[in-house]
Amino acid sequence: MARKAVVLLSGGVDSATALAVARGKGHETCALTFDYGQRHKIELEAARRVARFLGATEHLVLELNLRRIGGSALTAGIDVPKNRDARAMAAGIPVTYVPARNTVFLSIALGWAEVLGARDLFIGVNAIDYSGYPDCRPEYLQQFERLASLATKAGAEGAIFRVHAPLVRLTKADIIRKGAALGVDFSLTHSCYDPSESGSPCGACDSCILRRKGFVEAGVRDPAAYPPDTPA
Amino acid sequence: MARKAVVLLSGGVDSATALAVARGKGHETCALTFDYGQRHKIELEAARRVARFLGATEHLVLELNLRRIGGSALTAGIDVPKNRDARAMAAGIPVTYVPARNTVFLSIALGWAEVLGARDLFIGVNAIDYSGYPDCRPEYLQQFERLASLATKAGAEGAIFRVHAPLVRLTKADIIRKGAALGVDFSLTHSCYDPSESGSPCGACDSCILRRKGFVEAGVRDPAAYPPDTPA
Repeated sequence: MARKAVVLLSGGVDSATALAVARGKGHETCALTFDYGQRHKIELEAARRVARFLGATEHLVLELNLRRIGGSALTAGIDVPKNRDARAMAAGIPVTYVPARNTVFLSIALGWAEVLGARDLFIGVNAIDYSGYPDCRPEYLQQFERLASLATKAGAEGAIFRVHAPLVRLTKADIIRKGAALGVDFSLTHSCYDPSESGSPCGACDSCILRRKGFVEAGVRDPAAYPPDTPA
Repeated sequence: MARKAVVLLSGGVDSATALAVARGKGHETCALTFDYGQRHKIELEAARRVARFLGATEHLVLELNLRRIGGSALTAGIDVPKNRDARAMAAGIPVTYVPARNTVFLSIALGWAEVLGARDLFIGVNAIDYSGYPDCRPEYLQQFERLASLATKAGAEGAIFRVHAPLVRLTKADIIRKGAALGVDFSLTHSCYDPSESGSPCGACDSCILRRKGFVEAGVRDPAAYPPDTPA
């Protein structure tokens, strides 16, 4: 019998690939997406498309208004940086960092996993291309795993929770190759931090730049519709 | 200058006392309450009254619908147990356990603390009278504290977060004595898991029983208005 797994799904390339990896390992996947006051709801639509396409058994979209807390370009009125090179991106934790986001998301995933009887959590974080987020590092994820068993009734009764981060040591190009090999349709995904009203990616934020570079390096065509003046 | 502290505030005896302790230690207190789909909103009104009375600088009431996840008598359609003695309460984790609740609440408190520049989190958990909740134990809280520094930008830059659980080893009677000594007005608090439509406590759920017993043992008058047939 397929064991259930809870997969955090934002609707971007990484979480879509993480969902495909969980499915590839034979898990029955329960996708969890947060409506956390992102600047645009396009991410949520992408998550719904990806969950359906990759056969998630359940898809829970949970509202959690992190705008009330603020502190990030993604949830407050701070400008998203544009056209930064790899060096600028590597020089510290970016303003798109959302305080304690992965801890909040993993905690809720843990609660849902406990209710579902799932023991496996999947998260598409990555510590290579965009190493500035503290809650994407392997040592952080290991610490959360230790906490999970202490935190829960299931853990107190002997269950061991696992936090799988199958992309944590991959480059964006590797992730794209892996996703492509697992049949992810990247035209369903959305990566941009600052899309237009109609949902088109800007091509210039850190997330777009990393995505574009990753597709080029992977030798895979990026189906995203960037503005015409975006450099190749 | 008073250092800011984030205090988790449910509006019950314990969290009200934890808030009073934080204030007593000279912190500028920022109270955080969750509207998480509890059976009754009376708890939220109690939290608002307590925050005001105890001079919290800020009081954030955040919606997070844990009913979508379920798994607890407090958030799903499971009956709250009544008239249990101490032995029955000690015999395992109760159905009022909300999966991963304290981890979810502490994670969001951590995110808010990071935005506020606070390094101290206060939580009114207790491991003595009601030891069934795994996420009320000291070893759990220590583990969360370790996670907090790894999880955050502030932590990566050297900040150390502290999770204070000043009531963790106190009996309910001790908590009530401490709260009374710190000037908590217990008539503002609400403890019942299963109040009437008008908000009156049932007198018979685990929370009411522990509260009643605690006030008796502390020699303090319980201002709660229990039903007339509640035994003394």
